[in-house]
Amino acid sequence: MASKNNAGGQIEKHDGGHPGDQLIVNCLPLDQGERQEFLQAAPGIRQVFMVGTDMRQSMQWPMGVLQSCQSEATIILGNPPTDQVAACRNLVWLQTSSAGVDAYLKPGVLPPDAMLTSASGAYGQSVSEHMFAMMWTIMKDLPGYRDNQRMGRWQPRGAVLSPHGCRVLVLGTGDIGASFARLSKAVGARTIGIRRHPDQPVEGFDRLAGFDDLDALLPDVDVVALALPSTPQTRHIIDGPRLEMMKSTAVLINAGRGDAVDCMALAQALDKEDIFGAGLDVTEPEPLPENHPLWSQPRCLLTPHVAGGAHLASNVDKILEICLDNLRRFMDGRPLRNRMR
Amino acid sequence: MASKNNAGGQIEKHDGGHPGDQLIVNCLPLDQGERQEFLQAAPGIRQVFMVGTDMRQSMQWPMGVLQSCQSEATIILGNPPTDQVAACRNLVWLQTSSAGVDAYLKPGVLPPDAMLTSASGAYGQSVSEHMFAMMWTIMKDLPGYRDNQRMGRWQPRGAVLSPHGCRVLVLGTGDIGASFARLSKAVGARTIGIRRHPDQPVEGFDRLAGFDDLDALLPDVDVVALALPSTPQTRHIIDGPRLEMMKSTAVLINAGRGDAVDCMALAQALDKEDIFGAGLDVTEPEPLPENHPLWSQPRCLLTPHVAGGAHLASNVDKILEICLDNLRRFMDGRPLRNRMR
Repeated sequence: MASKNNAGGQIEKHDGGHPGDQLIVNCLPLDQGERQEFLQAAPGIRQVFMVGTDMRQSMQWPMGVLQSCQSEATIILGNPPTDQVAACRNLVWLQTSSAGVDAYLKPGVLPPDAMLTSASGAYGQSVSEHMFAMMWTIMKDLPGYRDNQRMGRWQPRGAVLSPHGCRVLVLGTGDIGASFARLSKAVGARTIGIRRHPDQPVEGFDRLAGFDDLDALLPDVDVVALALPSTPQTRHIIDGPRLEMMKSTAVLINAGRGDAVDCMALAQALDKEDIFGAGLDVTEPEPLPENHPLWSQPRCLLTPHVAGGAHLASNVDKILEICLDNLRRFMDGRPLRNRMR
Repeated sequence: MASKNNAGGQIEKHDGGHPGDQLIVNCLPLDQGERQEFLQAAPGIRQVFMVGTDMRQSMQWPMGVLQSCQSEATIILGNPPTDQVAACRNLVWLQTSSAGVDAYLKPGVLPPDAMLTSASGAYGQSVSEHMFAMMWTIMKDLPGYRDNQRMGRWQPRGAVLSPHGCRVLVLGTGDIGASFARLSKAVGARTIGIRRHPDQPVEGFDRLAGFDDLDALLPDVDVVALALPSTPQTRHIIDGPRLEMMKSTAVLINAGRGDAVDCMALAQALDKEDIFGAGLDVTEPEPLPENHPLWSQPRCLLTPHVAGGAHLASNVDKILEICLDNLRRFMDGRPLRNRMR
């Protein structure tokens, strides 16, 4: 009856099972019905559930992989801390609940032959919607009105903008970037996507361009939205000189990785009114240091890397669907989805 | 050369004109080119320009109608204070730059036979976009994150919502309500409009209902958006009992007239978490009194009746287009647009 209160750490074995030499360390915040589904997807394999549904909202797993399981763990579902994953030397497969997996790709984290799959595709809706909400909020100057409200000030603030008829430039045309483009198009914007292979069409974009075209495009667009992974090529792709190239009415949105934007240069650009405003769900570093000028920049809205979390209930459903599907594929010996290595 | 610096008060006469006994008091914030257009639209009639383009952003006309013109004014374009309009006893036509005209319909403001036309239609985009931005902002809890930002707090806040798949109920299906419904549909919401004559279809709405259906609909909808004129029937149409009927995840938006929502009851409903949040561009009264609990309600976003102002540049263009078209119609003896009496 250890599982009654949804506490973590209890081992459940499927009825028809035999001990086997596999152990699934399941770090997903499952309710009882969902645990049954995962047990049934991998009959005969021991499965240990690390967290209860109380973790569902935060999708953070403070406990990580139990020390006692490390030598036995062959499969991990979820995102335990990398040092704990590195201790699992018999791991054959890690399925993350995140879309980004860069932390697990670093040398020494996974055993050489271990497979890695992500939950890419589960976050397109929530992250793109968060970016879209930020774009609207900044265009209508609602953070400034919120500040006025907190000061009891009933006072018009000045010019606002509209996405209607705007040119929206999206860097990164994956699941998230394309979803954001579709939303923007739906409210009357024209969308341009920047990707490595601009010759392959992507739904939601009126036009595609390569990274080499960025400097030519920046002076003419009204919104610059970033949904890029963290790579050496994308680091500070939006820096001081590029912010200066942008329209004074331009809006910058970043919900990919924080290091795509030079946050110090952004603070200066906003001070100089080089652009209209910015919305960042990701920063460099995270959390943003206490004394960073962006905290108090009136035209910069900050959210603490929550766009892709579990705050939107449907996200969790999508993450679990991918994990469960991949577990079934693993058992059947079929190719896994979202294979990252 | 009085008009060189765009200051107010100068009288210009069209070349081919004769004095006539008409005087147009033009209170619109026009640039030189636009003044020429208005002069050319009414050849031979004296036209006095009251404000310069410096008023364009605020669209407020502090000077009103010059005392010296009151006895002569036969046509006013714009929204001077009602007491100054009331002093113009020879007025034959008032064209407002606002969509609402209730202030000018009160007894004693206009001479008995004077015509009144509004700028209805010019505000659909800006007001509906402001409502749409507020809906997204509240659903993604961005006002709460803004408050955290101002306190230097990097911390997830909890559940957020999505309009995708939501049921959005719009009270008032005119220009503004229908535009808001179209935007909501474009991002995946299902839209229900409430209007006096639900048998006549309105674009943007999946379904229409009458005011009698309101109580039956409220428990099932995710968003309640108000774009209603102020009438005895719409006063406090959203009151305490109706707020209690709504889902605890429901979002309320009002950008019509402030008295459609009982603001005290709303503050209590938000305290009790009867609904998820609210966005108000209009309140009762306006400005909201200093000690009103909504000022500090974390889940209520307030803006100071700016959705329909001139903050969106394209609004001014639309207002001027209506005024100019009606002036040409007046000169030709054709029926005026947006006739309110």
